[in-house]
Amino acid sequence: MHTSVQKWSAEFIGTLWLTLGGCGSAVLAAAFPEIGIGLVGVSLAFGLTVVTGAYALGPISGGHFNPAVSVGLAMGGRFAWAELPGYVIAQVLGAIVGGGILYVIATGKAGADLGGFATNGFGAHSPGGYDLSAAVLTEVVMTALFLVVILGATAQRAAAGFAGLAIGLCLTLIHLISIPVTNTSVNPARSTGVAVFGPDIAMNQLWLFWVAPIIGAIIGAVIYKSLLANRADD
Amino acid sequence: MHTSVQKWSAEFIGTLWLTLGGCGSAVLAAAFPEIGIGLVGVSLAFGLTVVTGAYALGPISGGHFNPAVSVGLAMGGRFAWAELPGYVIAQVLGAIVGGGILYVIATGKAGADLGGFATNGFGAHSPGGYDLSAAVLTEVVMTALFLVVILGATAQRAAAGFAGLAIGLCLTLIHLISIPVTNTSVNPARSTGVAVFGPDIAMNQLWLFWVAPIIGAIIGAVIYKSLLANRADD
Amino acid sequence: MHTSVQKWSAEFIGTLWLTLGGCGSAVLAAAFPEIGIGLVGVSLAFGLTVVTGAYALGPISGGHFNPAVSVGLAMGGRFAWAELPGYVIAQVLGAIVGGGILYVIATGKAGADLGGFATNGFGAHSPGGYDLSAAVLTEVVMTALFLVVILGATAQRAAAGFAGLAIGLCLTLIHLISIPVTNTSVNPARSTGVAVFGPDIAMNQLWLFWVAPIIGAIIGAVIYKSLLANRADD
Amino acid sequence: MHTSVQKWSAEFIGTLWLTLGGCGSAVLAAAFPEIGIGLVGVSLAFGLTVVTGAYALGPISGGHFNPAVSVGLAMGGRFAWAELPGYVIAQVLGAIVGGGILYVIATGKAGADLGGFATNGFGAHSPGGYDLSAAVLTEVVMTALFLVVILGATAQRAAAGFAGLAIGLCLTLIHLISIPVTNTSVNPARSTGVAVFGPDIAMNQLWLFWVAPIIGAIIGAVIYKSLLANRADD
Repeated sequence: MHTSVQKWSAEFIGTLWLTLGGCGSAVLAAAFPEIGIGLVGVSLAFGLTVVTGAYALGPISGGHFNPAVSVGLAMGGRFAWAELPGYVIAQVLGAIVGGGILYVIATGKAGADLGGFATNGFGAHSPGGYDLSAAVLTEVVMTALFLVVILGATAQRAAAGFAGLAIGLCLTLIHLISIPVTNTSVNPARSTGVAVFGPDIAMNQLWLFWVAPIIGAIIGAVIYKSLLANRADD
Repeated sequence: MHTSVQKWSAEFIGTLWLTLGGCGSAVLAAAFPEIGIGLVGVSLAFGLTVVTGAYALGPISGGHFNPAVSVGLAMGGRFAWAELPGYVIAQVLGAIVGGGILYVIATGKAGADLGGFATNGFGAHSPGGYDLSAAVLTEVVMTALFLVVILGATAQRAAAGFAGLAIGLCLTLIHLISIPVTNTSVNPARSTGVAVFGPDIAMNQLWLFWVAPIIGAIIGAVIYKSLLANRADD
Repeated sequence: MHTSVQKWSAEFIGTLWLTLGGCGSAVLAAAFPEIGIGLVGVSLAFGLTVVTGAYALGPISGGHFNPAVSVGLAMGGRFAWAELPGYVIAQVLGAIVGGGILYVIATGKAGADLGGFATNGFGAHSPGGYDLSAAVLTEVVMTALFLVVILGATAQRAAAGFAGLAIGLCLTLIHLISIPVTNTSVNPARSTGVAVFGPDIAMNQLWLFWVAPIIGAIIGAVIYKSLLANRADD
Repeated sequence: MHTSVQKWSAEFIGTLWLTLGGCGSAVLAAAFPEIGIGLVGVSLAFGLTVVTGAYALGPISGGHFNPAVSVGLAMGGRFAWAELPGYVIAQVLGAIVGGGILYVIATGKAGADLGGFATNGFGAHSPGGYDLSAAVLTEVVMTALFLVVILGATAQRAAAGFAGLAIGLCLTLIHLISIPVTNTSVNPARSTGVAVFGPDIAMNQLWLFWVAPIIGAIIGAVIYKSLLANRADD
């Protein structure tokens, strides 16, 4: 067993890593001239922050790194509601520190242009110009399916050890689909961590990236519990 | 053991995810200006829908997500023919719902252009202009080898736990090869799920993406059983 | 235990898959306009043919799919020299059938241009114009390190089950490095399978892609046995 | 148990492979016309040198391939300080031989232009023009988090067998983020191995790529030990 401080430290570091790594790849490397990593590289980076965090820190805290995931796991009966506030605080603080480190690095060159600083948005702030309803639908559906994958891949019956790969690569997949719509959140902490340093519009739209992923996570957990879970091997 | 409703739910959700995720990456992100994910990203997305679905839902339903795979597994003696109708219905319904969600998201912007909506085709509807015979050969051969990989990687003697990765990455590989020919089906449900919302030509050519993958799957199962399988460790 | 016919069938199918899949991705999809898979996609495809083949067919034949690998494994004491001729014949035949299937598909469109048909070469036939000595050095060194990885990842002490991933991804890595030099062979069967259908210069230069990979494989096996292997856990 | 010569050989070969493979992909293939692998391919290549080296050579030497990693593991109590000098010498020699092989290959064509030869740098020698402080911060933070992942993924409690994937893919992630800043080192041996053959500015700036990664590794080990590690399952 690990102490609460160890769990909070793991969630802080893991969410820092997710925000610094995923958003850092987007801000620093996505559009590098000629040989930039593009949206494939950004999608891979987000997923690998979770793959690496899950194998390194998962045994300590469960490796949520995401308030919506923590809510969904609590709904699914895998995580104590009483632990939720501590986890969410650690996640948001970690994301903000990750965003801050990225801000310092990204401004460390002459004529630095941060653009949207990898913030999430809809309408005028959607990368592809998608409207509010498309953004809501996308964030709800993606987070719901993310939770189905998380709950299924960590069930008793699931292949031992592979959950970290399946869950991390699920985040890669979600980014491959939905960056053009909302710049992909499915994670309120990640959205907050860069909104603090980004353009005003990102803060104005931040509410959606708390509400929609959490609703999606709850829906995913309910689908899993009602349609897929068995008492014996859940 | 899981109930039939749980199995059908798993196949419905998994095929919804395959269609929404794979085709969604193609429709929304493949040709995003400058930094789009291209055919590498689409190939990765299709494969990751299966990797994630296999680890999360595979223990419930077997994780077919594809009528041709269900037929091939039945031919190979791994799946009861009596279960086939329920599975295929769940898969097709899941694919259509996945295609419908994608349609709503993709039309959620001003001036949305759905193009071919990730439908499969040959001749005038082949991405690279390949003719009917090239399309048939491609879909038959790719599905046959897909079934050899599925049957081999899930055999008793195979390394435990790795089948989900091997099979999902096989779908990535198949897309890396054959998107230019037919836009890659090897899966009648996935083809149907987007044809319903796509251009008329896709519905007119849909028969091929039922016939060729199923023939390919049967050939793959026969090759596996006759040339590769052992009674003891199959 | 599997019969010789089963082993030969597995090597035939696996090498067919490697040649059709790896070279197919190069011929059909690498330079597809705007969204082609490029050399990253081709590198991934070659590696995934081995990942999928290793998990599906490895338990039957060992999953060599490459005459140089078979020679290196024999040098390393992991494979009986007496089995070598049967394996090599099956591999070469599989590669030629794979190349033939690809030829039929690739010519199934109006104005098809096969270019180099994914053949290997040096000097005038090197993708980047590299000369004979650079080509020899590249093929020898890459195959030597390939064998070190194969022998190490399949040793008794190695993590069970992961060899298929490590070895397949090693082939991806080798392609990421060396396609510009020789179009990457490290596999005489793969080179032969497309040279038969490619431009004359490919057949004239084919000797190098038998000699250099086999020399490299022998060097790799000698390095492994002399510097790295332990009697107890090799 | 392996002998010291076997361990040094494994570190020599593994670091040779990391430098030849990672830097080789950058020098030979990153900017290949039209279909080059770009920074995604280079990031993947660096990571795969570690994935393949870890599964093949990890059981022999621990698979450090990096002086900063060796220092961090010693700080974390996982590696004997007395073994450090031998490891670092083997790593640096391996990197230089890897850089030398790459130099011979890369100059084996008419009009070869080595550019920066994949060396690391800041200011005028940073790929994106990032200054000294951004470079230091990047190398320190990336190496610190690299060590957290390494120490966590190889702890007793961690999922057996997956460390090689998690650690290798962590190096891919680090490159996806930080190539534009410093060309990504986090590894003094890799920096040295190409600086010897690169432009003068690389040798002049080499000190930073020894100092910053080693400081980062120490910080990472301290964070891990003080905040995350349990006596029982570390």
